[in-house]
Amino acid sequence: MFLEVVRSQGLAHLSYIVGDQGAAAVIDPRRDCEIYRTLAYERGARITHIFETHRNEDYVIGSLDLSRKTGADIYHGEELPFAYGYPVTEGDVLRLGDVSLRVLKTPGHTYESISLVLADLSFGEDPVAVFTGDALFIGDAGRTDFFPDRAEEVAGLLYDSIFNKLLPLGDHVILYPAHGAGSVCGSGMASREFSTLGYERKHNPALQLADRSAFIRRKTGERHYQPPYFRRMEQYNLEGAPPLDLRVPEPLKPGDFARAMGEGMLAVDVRSAEAFAGAYIPGSLAIPLHMIPAFAGWLLPYDRDIGLVAHDHGSVETAVRYLARLGYDQVTSFLDGGLHQWEMSGSPYDSIPAVHAGNITARLDAQEPFTLLDVRTREEYEAGHLPGAVHVYVGELPHRLEDIPARRPVTTFCGSGERAIIAASILKRNGFEDVEDCLGSMAACSALGCPIEK
Amino acid sequence: MFLEVVRSQGLAHLSYIVGDQGAAAVIDPRRDCEIYRTLAYERGARITHIFETHRNEDYVIGSLDLSRKTGADIYHGEELPFAYGYPVTEGDVLRLGDVSLRVLKTPGHTYESISLVLADLSFGEDPVAVFTGDALFIGDAGRTDFFPDRAEEVAGLLYDSIFNKLLPLGDHVILYPAHGAGSVCGSGMASREFSTLGYERKHNPALQLADRSAFIRRKTGERHYQPPYFRRMEQYNLEGAPPLDLRVPEPLKPGDFARAMGEGMLAVDVRSAEAFAGAYIPGSLAIPLHMIPAFAGWLLPYDRDIGLVAHDHGSVETAVRYLARLGYDQVTSFLDGGLHQWEMSGSPYDSIPAVHAGNITARLDAQEPFTLLDVRTREEYEAGHLPGAVHVYVGELPHRLEDIPARRPVTTFCGSGERAIIAASILKRNGFEDVEDCLGSMAACSALGCPIEK
Amino acid sequence: MFLEVVRSQGLAHLSYIVGDQGAAAVIDPRRDCEIYRTLAYERGARITHIFETHRNEDYVIGSLDLSRKTGADIYHGEELPFAYGYPVTEGDVLRLGDVSLRVLKTPGHTYESISLVLADLSFGEDPVAVFTGDALFIGDAGRTDFFPDRAEEVAGLLYDSIFNKLLPLGDHVILYPAHGAGSVCGSGMASREFSTLGYERKHNPALQLADRSAFIRRKTGERHYQPPYFRRMEQYNLEGAPPLDLRVPEPLKPGDFARAMGEGMLAVDVRSAEAFAGAYIPGSLAIPLHMIPAFAGWLLPYDRDIGLVAHDHGSVETAVRYLARLGYDQVTSFLDGGLHQWEMSGSPYDSIPAVHAGNITARLDAQEPFTLLDVRTREEYEAGHLPGAVHVYVGELPHRLEDIPARRPVTTFCGSGERAIIAASILKRNGFEDVEDCLGSMAACSALGCPIEK
Amino acid sequence: MFLEVVRSQGLAHLSYIVGDQGAAAVIDPRRDCEIYRTLAYERGARITHIFETHRNEDYVIGSLDLSRKTGADIYHGEELPFAYGYPVTEGDVLRLGDVSLRVLKTPGHTYESISLVLADLSFGEDPVAVFTGDALFIGDAGRTDFFPDRAEEVAGLLYDSIFNKLLPLGDHVILYPAHGAGSVCGSGMASREFSTLGYERKHNPALQLADRSAFIRRKTGERHYQPPYFRRMEQYNLEGAPPLDLRVPEPLKPGDFARAMGEGMLAVDVRSAEAFAGAYIPGSLAIPLHMIPAFAGWLLPYDRDIGLVAHDHGSVETAVRYLARLGYDQVTSFLDGGLHQWEMSGSPYDSIPAVHAGNITARLDAQEPFTLLDVRTREEYEAGHLPGAVHVYVGELPHRLEDIPARRPVTTFCGSGERAIIAASILKRNGFEDVEDCLGSMAACSALGCPIEK
Repeated sequence: MFLEVVRSQGLAHLSYIVGDQGAAAVIDPRRDCEIYRTLAYERGARITHIFETHRNEDYVIGSLDLSRKTGADIYHGEELPFAYGYPVTEGDVLRLGDVSLRVLKTPGHTYESISLVLADLSFGEDPVAVFTGDALFIGDAGRTDFFPDRAEEVAGLLYDSIFNKLLPLGDHVILYPAHGAGSVCGSGMASREFSTLGYERKHNPALQLADRSAFIRRKTGERHYQPPYFRRMEQYNLEGAPPLDLRVPEPLKPGDFARAMGEGMLAVDVRSAEAFAGAYIPGSLAIPLHMIPAFAGWLLPYDRDIGLVAHDHGSVETAVRYLARLGYDQVTSFLDGGLHQWEMSGSPYDSIPAVHAGNITARLDAQEPFTLLDVRTREEYEAGHLPGAVHVYVGELPHRLEDIPARRPVTTFCGSGERAIIAASILKRNGFEDVEDCLGSMAACSALGCPIEK
Repeated sequence: MFLEVVRSQGLAHLSYIVGDQGAAAVIDPRRDCEIYRTLAYERGARITHIFETHRNEDYVIGSLDLSRKTGADIYHGEELPFAYGYPVTEGDVLRLGDVSLRVLKTPGHTYESISLVLADLSFGEDPVAVFTGDALFIGDAGRTDFFPDRAEEVAGLLYDSIFNKLLPLGDHVILYPAHGAGSVCGSGMASREFSTLGYERKHNPALQLADRSAFIRRKTGERHYQPPYFRRMEQYNLEGAPPLDLRVPEPLKPGDFARAMGEGMLAVDVRSAEAFAGAYIPGSLAIPLHMIPAFAGWLLPYDRDIGLVAHDHGSVETAVRYLARLGYDQVTSFLDGGLHQWEMSGSPYDSIPAVHAGNITARLDAQEPFTLLDVRTREEYEAGHLPGAVHVYVGELPHRLEDIPARRPVTTFCGSGERAIIAASILKRNGFEDVEDCLGSMAACSALGCPIEK
Repeated sequence: MFLEVVRSQGLAHLSYIVGDQGAAAVIDPRRDCEIYRTLAYERGARITHIFETHRNEDYVIGSLDLSRKTGADIYHGEELPFAYGYPVTEGDVLRLGDVSLRVLKTPGHTYESISLVLADLSFGEDPVAVFTGDALFIGDAGRTDFFPDRAEEVAGLLYDSIFNKLLPLGDHVILYPAHGAGSVCGSGMASREFSTLGYERKHNPALQLADRSAFIRRKTGERHYQPPYFRRMEQYNLEGAPPLDLRVPEPLKPGDFARAMGEGMLAVDVRSAEAFAGAYIPGSLAIPLHMIPAFAGWLLPYDRDIGLVAHDHGSVETAVRYLARLGYDQVTSFLDGGLHQWEMSGSPYDSIPAVHAGNITARLDAQEPFTLLDVRTREEYEAGHLPGAVHVYVGELPHRLEDIPARRPVTTFCGSGERAIIAASILKRNGFEDVEDCLGSMAACSALGCPIEK
Repeated sequence: MFLEVVRSQGLAHLSYIVGDQGAAAVIDPRRDCEIYRTLAYERGARITHIFETHRNEDYVIGSLDLSRKTGADIYHGEELPFAYGYPVTEGDVLRLGDVSLRVLKTPGHTYESISLVLADLSFGEDPVAVFTGDALFIGDAGRTDFFPDRAEEVAGLLYDSIFNKLLPLGDHVILYPAHGAGSVCGSGMASREFSTLGYERKHNPALQLADRSAFIRRKTGERHYQPPYFRRMEQYNLEGAPPLDLRVPEPLKPGDFARAMGEGMLAVDVRSAEAFAGAYIPGSLAIPLHMIPAFAGWLLPYDRDIGLVAHDHGSVETAVRYLARLGYDQVTSFLDGGLHQWEMSGSPYDSIPAVHAGNITARLDAQEPFTLLDVRTREEYEAGHLPGAVHVYVGELPHRLEDIPARRPVTTFCGSGERAIIAASILKRNGFEDVEDCLGSMAACSALGCPIEK
């Protein structure tokens, strides 16, 4: 028997392959799915089954691609009219050697959500682990904000799934959720990647409430963001996404890159916040490489070509992979030679001055006329912010530009300075002229003991 | 917080690195210890502490090497006079960020054995996992046969460690032992690599007995083999092994290889059983590559140069690594071009005819005069063997040659034919002339329905 | 400016990528063509042009696949009606940055053969290197046996191409041919992979003859083998081969593998000669892994599924790649767990006894009744063979079985014992019962000083 | 026979391994020498000989390390009292299988310089290639400025070596020099990495002069820089460098990194020019990663600890390797989490504003009071510079700070903006307050058609 976790960085997505005696099942495969075949191959197994714990909204699931390459069948909950695969229902059991996977319907996050209970038949039918999808995480419970007009109903369903179906499996059962810390699918997840139902029962904050009503109140009181790309993911994951084709984008010389921008290509700069601050192509959008999984879905359209500005070839490849996981298949080119070539070509570039947290405080004290734009989440903002800060979440900024005073200097601000560079690039693209970024931002303010309001 | 398992194939040894916020601890490092530094580096952590759950007897521990390269301190149980490191005792706690590791004395396998209880302080001091060393495995309990004159005492100690110290940590606690299936440190381990104290409490066969006395009876009734290299490992792991130097051995042409053999070098052939059967160098010892961790310690001396015969360069490197883990640092050369070059040089070679299980049965029926030499373990033999088979464990064969009738054909036999090729090579090295190997052996006999005695 | 050689092992095929300032051309790409894109990418270049020096007969050219993935145009000589690409003619010039590639028509090996003359325009138009395809090799000239009814004509054409077109480029010009030592496209190539026109003019044996007539006599007197797969390659390389799909074949359990063999699948055993000799599946064909490029095209049909028997997963992958280069896309499965699992399943296996060269001589002296079957090439045989040896080239053996006395023991024999194992497996598949392999063969005989006839 | 080139990026150093029939020689090995053993191993060869074409001054030669690991003997020219190895002289011949290497004394670059003439004995004793060390490059001849008081003598010696020893070997001989384009050992080398004596005889500009006197005039008229680390390299390469120990440096948190800087550690920032411009640690020195081989030897002392600021772990490793090749073994730490962590800690940082070439011109036109500091080489400066630019070579800047007006704004300027960022960081470290960097610099000026003086 073998079980391997496949982590997708940035998405904080966890998928699994489990098998025995030559057969294997994959749970919630990602779109660039070659890794599962490699793992199966190393273990001498064929992938015969693919499970989707639910229709995911935050990434393109790789079931169809993996099925095409392996012949494996796909299974999901029966409540949605998936255009492919087969429905499963409570109590269905798959056996692979001594592995048994039993379906448990655990609605709440979505109606069709299922969990899969793993038993090692060489030791008996008692469960040893459970794959919970987005129902139960380590340190948090799944989001229930996708059906706003039925908010209490689905929160109640999740309560029942957790307390009446999952926890009764036993304290000794290992928990394998579909996301870890950093995912947009929850906000309180532990950085630890291993836990049990018993440990969660005792220590998961979401499970420590008085009763079902308290749980429902907590869940309906949560405020989550829903990036616009969720709609595209839901469509892809219901109808089936197009096959993945991880192409090498074309290198373009500065002149050609500028021309392509002129013809509608969106330039996405995946370099570090500092490098963007130092020099960038006017009109380009900053999304530092590691932030693509969390922010591309807010900011990138699906109907425009994308051209990358990157530090090196490895970054180009990683960016292409990250974007493909979100269904962005139209990365057509990258700037050959990077910004250095751009500069040498004499093409125009711009900069974003960096402001130290200490200076921000000084300015505030001096009541200098400027907008301190805090682009963190509502929760972060409400947990503490600098006096006078204007709050607009970075993901919503492109649609709320009118909320920013136009002819005043703006200093963008976030938790550390990275979302702030994204925000700064958005402002610059939209005609704001005097824009600075507070590198260090809230973390630096905390370290320096700046005054903080709640 | 991060936790990674490092598996050493063949030894079925499991070591761990756990850390948080820039610091990390390694538990039971293997000798080729570069991998821990790589893992720490990827996580942005320094290795600051090394724990040895006990003085290992089945491999060279890498603590000293790792300590030299990182500056980390080494800790172990206080009952042995280790020549290096620091003693720890019950209740000692190490904190690395939000990771806490608490020492639990869990003697039985050895007197100085400790376990380490892991808590995630961001969720409280309740344990979430425990590193049990060789005290408790998944599906088995540790061996207690190393103090034969105090057998009941140590078995009782292990009972107390498991039932009064480990299990009371709670059903929800994840179990991280020092060995998995295939280790010489236990015989009933599950192939599954994940479990909890609760699952083991309910399903581990070694924990299902009536009471302490029954547990002691079971443990004292077990019969384990103690390969002779255990003595060397115990010495190394008490006094400190020499620094590892994974050298590339020297390629020798057939003539030079033969000359080195003449001067005392032991030729070890790590090719497959079939390839050895097809042609081998007279005087060489067969140990197929993947069997080195389990059998080299029985068969190889520490004071003779070793020359390898391998299928390719990759096999040479793997063999050198496997042997180094057992303290064999004297692999000086390999046969350049492999057996193919040897054959082309006109040098003499020999073969071991393969005999199908079906033929064995026919011979037995016909009462042909031959010795069927079963080299499996006592347990395997007693669980079922062919009629008339002579039993000598492969590890003990070099010292029990007088038990084999000298002038009669011998067919070596084991579970699948691989230990049988080792045995056949030992017999050939010792003057037996008419030796065959039953490729398939007991597995084939079972598949074919041969008559089996118990 | 950059230039990289890509070597394809076994085929001894040399292809090239050359480029400058962001653009690159590939000359004679192999079918698994990802490597050229990787090399171009590392150099910041796009592949814009692909040249075929001639229609190759010994492997599937990768032009079409590479063109599909890069958009590059394909160019070849104008004398054949290729179904794709564009014709080029004498004097056509391609310029990539400071690289210039000028077409030189160099017929002889085939009518449409071209060479490409490389100049570094930053130093002038004087040639610095030339890609000669199969016209001129290091140490040999191209084969001219493909038009047997116009043998003298094409040999004369090749003379003119070499002496009137290539050599006049100058002694200082570096030579980049399409094949190196070990290729079926020539027999006298140097093991050295670097040379110049000047060095070849002085030292290449094929160029040291008195005059054009002597050259023609030499070439028309050569006897080359034409493996049957050449026909398929010529068709593919004229009409365009199907797109490559390097699939992972399916692992089959012994029972399923046997069943597939029963239904027509050809089992190809790519293990070493010794391993095959030790134990093999009755009915399987031996082609040791590294011999696939040279011998698969003689022995494998294009219309049967192929199942592999291999030592490990890496060998399976390499075999699939090697076979795809020859157009064998129907490798559907491999034996899961290899021969070891086969043996354990109780399935029947057979062996090929190995005979030492010394024993052969003894048998010959004793006039024992057996057939010594020498399967080397005619040239090798005629250069020296054991007395009484029957000669049939291994590639022709399946069609010349009637030349082997049926009810007599056969010992297969070649240069080292490897082609002999292929031959032994062919005989066994065809009902010969008493077959042995002389591991070491001619090399061992030479080393031992056996009597040799010419 | 095999021959492989090993390129060391940045240094543009070319070393070679050549061998046959199980033995190999390495010519001018680099300090991180594991690659030669790997290459030899793959070819089934032992490294038995190491040649140094001369005492190198621009990198630490790896002969001693390689000799320690292989047992190979080291050979060099007889004119220097090397503390290790053996002297060779004109006509000495080494034979490895069919490879012969003959020593040719080719003084000029240094007195003890030798070349090695390669013949393929299977084709005769005629040379096929020559390893020329620093005597003859592709497109240039070696430097002769190391003996300024004997300038004409050594230039004449080099003329004799090239014209009377090397070129007479024949036009057909392939040239394998010790450096390629980008090396500090010459300034006119071709980007092409393949050539012959014949091509060089006809097209190498250094060989197109009227006679010996003209050659001597040309060479004595050249002006090369001699970075200060050359002294250390000469000492190491005469007496033997300490064994290489490529350690992983220690990650330091921002506070600890700052403390180490306070105690004397030199912070070297290897990020891109743009990232440094965006934000950097006050007191740190900028040397973008790929510029370390060319500039570290000018700017780094050998007696201070070095702490790295890098973009990622891969950059740390590369920097450590690059620095070790120049003998800098004291890289003790790197900033954990990079500049981002530094910013979040609230620690102070600074920026270097970037100025577009177009703005420079505008400022010059407007006669704004500022210093335009051109830090390119003398040759580059003299070939064309902006009006009013002050010239100080970047390598000499730390010792010529008094040449820069102190209280005036400074804009650093070079070929593309990268050396300018090094210069800007040097000025900032030395108290200059108003410093900007012209990203794009001369390349952008040329593209934009700025006015240029000569």
